[in-house]
Amino acid sequence: MKLRFTKMQGLGNDFVVLDGVSQALALSPIQLRQLGDRHFGVGCDQILLVENPHHPDADFRYRIFNGADGGEVEQCGNGARCFVRFVHDRGLTGKRTIRVETARGLITPRLEDNGLVTVDMGAPRFSPAEIPFIAEHEAVSHSIKVAARMVEISAVSMGNPHAVQVVENVDNAPVALEGPIIEHHPLFPERVNAGFMQIASRSEIRLRVYERGAGETLACGTGACAAVVSGIRRGLLDPTVQVHTRGGELSISWAGEGQPVLMTGPAVTVFEGEIEL
Amino acid sequence: MKLRFTKMQGLGNDFVVLDGVSQALALSPIQLRQLGDRHFGVGCDQILLVENPHHPDADFRYRIFNGADGGEVEQCGNGARCFVRFVHDRGLTGKRTIRVETARGLITPRLEDNGLVTVDMGAPRFSPAEIPFIAEHEAVSHSIKVAARMVEISAVSMGNPHAVQVVENVDNAPVALEGPIIEHHPLFPERVNAGFMQIASRSEIRLRVYERGAGETLACGTGACAAVVSGIRRGLLDPTVQVHTRGGELSISWAGEGQPVLMTGPAVTVFEGEIEL
Repeated sequence: MKLRFTKMQGLGNDFVVLDGVSQALALSPIQLRQLGDRHFGVGCDQILLVENPHHPDADFRYRIFNGADGGEVEQCGNGARCFVRFVHDRGLTGKRTIRVETARGLITPRLEDNGLVTVDMGAPRFSPAEIPFIAEHEAVSHSIKVAARMVEISAVSMGNPHAVQVVENVDNAPVALEGPIIEHHPLFPERVNAGFMQIASRSEIRLRVYERGAGETLACGTGACAAVVSGIRRGLLDPTVQVHTRGGELSISWAGEGQPVLMTGPAVTVFEGEIEL
Repeated sequence: MKLRFTKMQGLGNDFVVLDGVSQALALSPIQLRQLGDRHFGVGCDQILLVENPHHPDADFRYRIFNGADGGEVEQCGNGARCFVRFVHDRGLTGKRTIRVETARGLITPRLEDNGLVTVDMGAPRFSPAEIPFIAEHEAVSHSIKVAARMVEISAVSMGNPHAVQVVENVDNAPVALEGPIIEHHPLFPERVNAGFMQIASRSEIRLRVYERGAGETLACGTGACAAVVSGIRRGLLDPTVQVHTRGGELSISWAGEGQPVLMTGPAVTVFEGEIEL
């Protein structure tokens, strides 16, 4: 079959986006892997399939599949932003705030006037059991031993665990050296994403993240949320912060304990294509 | 500008192919890098630009640019095969043997009846100075020390240097362990591609290659030529050999000393696309 697709990216996290609204699409895991393959197919981190909703209150439903193995995965902020741009640019809706049915429930991303997209990333969690992190009590930061030195980290869950430290300069931060040590630190029984945050001002940080199981990536959405939240809790940052990553810029807002983190960032159409599957 | 392109691959070596015959195309290094980028662009190993020839005896000219840096590079067998399929499939020529002007002179690849493409890869060279390889005299094979053991390698140049060894089973050959040691062996002053060849029969081998500067790749065209040539010189192989690589199948023919090596293999159109540059 001939399949039309759109290639999109958000901070370098890239997607093959398929319109399952105008046409019924049922792709096999083999076809999904073929779309995901960077040498023998189109190539992407994930495939994003936009469909009509099942839920009566939703405008759309979307599903995300890993390009590497074709397996269905949880939602991600970069994918949600690309989804919003896609349904707008193709004229599938005129609404700017869109109710979307996802694997983790209804979310309502919003297309901003400047073309950026805001996504609700959920509320951060700090209790050691929820992260999970082995500590006697919850605290804004903890000293842990990394190789020969003590490092002050904040432990935060954004659905996945993060250990964020403040560094003087991200450009020469020991990401490659300490990232894997922190990732496998025995105090994080399910391993952890290691964030290295440089405070540029009360409203601006520079960030690098060593992702659990993936190594350093161009940009990590939940890592940006975790870093800003921990900076606000340490009294270093204001409620809205611009985050500079190697993949691009994000704006993160958090109103405090119990509130959701809002992430605003770009979603870019790279090219249109047609493939025989 | 809006640019139409075709994504192709030969044994997993992948190309963005551009028609510079029907339209004049002058792309900047920045635009070439954008095409080559796997996350922010289309993504490919190389960009292949098909143009009208300057040379009066040629049917076409083509140029190859690296996707990573936009720099112009020498020709490669996988690219030549994709070029032939491209000009045929787009109806730019009806000829099956095509005279092409490349950076290294005129070549005449041929589209076979079965859709595969045969490319003349040039004559192999064996003199130590031409490889370059430090040895007192030319020989079919040499014993060199690799880590703790002695390995019997054949040294061959196919325009680039190769050290080929025979192994019992490529699946558990020490490619990752010995590849980098052989690559940097002091007897190869310009480093070397390390081939690991399993002889399945007189007309069939299985091959893995640790490429100089790149590590193990899905398939290496010159590595397949070097392996078959060295197997023929060792008296282990017939003049035409089927080569199984992780990226796919090649047929290699060599009539002996002074003769060119002919490589026959697939070239596949993966998808058509349109990008705004």
